[in-house]
Amino acid sequence: MSQDQTSADSMSKSEKTRKRLRAGAMAAFSELGFHGASTRHIATAAGMSPAAVYVHYKSKEELLYRISKFGHEAILAVVRDGAASSDDPAEQLRAYAFALAKYHAQEHVSARVVNYELGALEPEHHAEIIALRQELDRVVDAILQRGLDRGVFHTANLRMTSVTIVGACIDIARWYRDGGSWTPDDVGRFYADSALRIAGATP
Amino acid sequence: MSQDQTSADSMSKSEKTRKRLRAGAMAAFSELGFHGASTRHIATAAGMSPAAVYVHYKSKEELLYRISKFGHEAILAVVRDGAASSDDPAEQLRAYAFALAKYHAQEHVSARVVNYELGALEPEHHAEIIALRQELDRVVDAILQRGLDRGVFHTANLRMTSVTIVGACIDIARWYRDGGSWTPDDVGRFYADSALRIAGATP
Repeated sequence: MSQDQTSADSMSKSEKTRKRLRAGAMAAFSELGFHGASTRHIATAAGMSPAAVYVHYKSKEELLYRISKFGHEAILAVVRDGAASSDDPAEQLRAYAFALAKYHAQEHVSARVVNYELGALEPEHHAEIIALRQELDRVVDAILQRGLDRGVFHTANLRMTSVTIVGACIDIARWYRDGGSWTPDDVGRFYADSALRIAGATP
Repeated sequence: MSQDQTSADSMSKSEKTRKRLRAGAMAAFSELGFHGASTRHIATAAGMSPAAVYVHYKSKEELLYRISKFGHEAILAVVRDGAASSDDPAEQLRAYAFALAKYHAQEHVSARVVNYELGALEPEHHAEIIALRQELDRVVDAILQRGLDRGVFHTANLRMTSVTIVGACIDIARWYRDGGSWTPDDVGRFYADSALRIAGATP
């Protein structure tokens, strides 16, 4: 085995461990909240020793930061893909809301942590995550502005329209549970229609 | 002073203390989460000693239960008043959503606790609060059903329409902060319009 291979293997093993720790932290934060979950809870959920946590992450806050960063980057990627799927603002808004709603149903555990524990981040990390959220807002604001300019949307307040659409989608993570009668796709389609209605799209 | 008066005075003093403790618990739960807030945090927030907490509430969970019960009963009262303000389903839905949205802006601290810490309640208390939430759903479902029957609303899925409207209003507690540019009334009016749009009300 060459040195490169050894290095690649050990990196991949370390990344696997980090992933397991993030999953454990996500489960612990989701159940007990950031302040209620101890390093021991996280280690137990990940099937590891508390000491192992600190080998990979210097603090509980760093774990929350990494989870938040991955979560927000993933959401941003799916809504950007959605928005880029068409030139028509109505179709863009539909794709944006579908992606955002479906994500919050499918990833409801991590989405609860990511949306409700923001306040526990250290100032520098908080600012970085807020910047990602603002990017998410900019995407929908731009779609709405284009739709207003072309006369296909009708709303008196662009910003409040964004907040209502994005907020409704975020709230899905609060109530959605696996195994119910609505699939993430069902939820995505309904919220996409609702987004167009909220924006006052001409039917 | 008659014995009745003494008893009334001491009841009122005890009720004041309990109210102060609930406010302290609300602040502590909102900041640190139910599992992250200790009796000491609650007592400090209320300006009392930790021992005083147990004189009035037998556990942290009982405090959460009382806060949740008061909060849900208050919400139920305002939306019922709203729904009773007219015979017209469109006006009823507008009043319902206005009341629910305004409440979640005005009472955003307690509303966050009430909506996001439900899972920490003991089974019996949890069932009681869920019953109050179902009552809240029944009010909006009945309005939507009447509107569909009269042909003033248009939606393929009544239950998902309710969930979308109620969920959007609940989410306000996540993002609303005092001192911003939107008053609780501004938010109430916008979400009331959005509720009619989501329900497919004939303009």
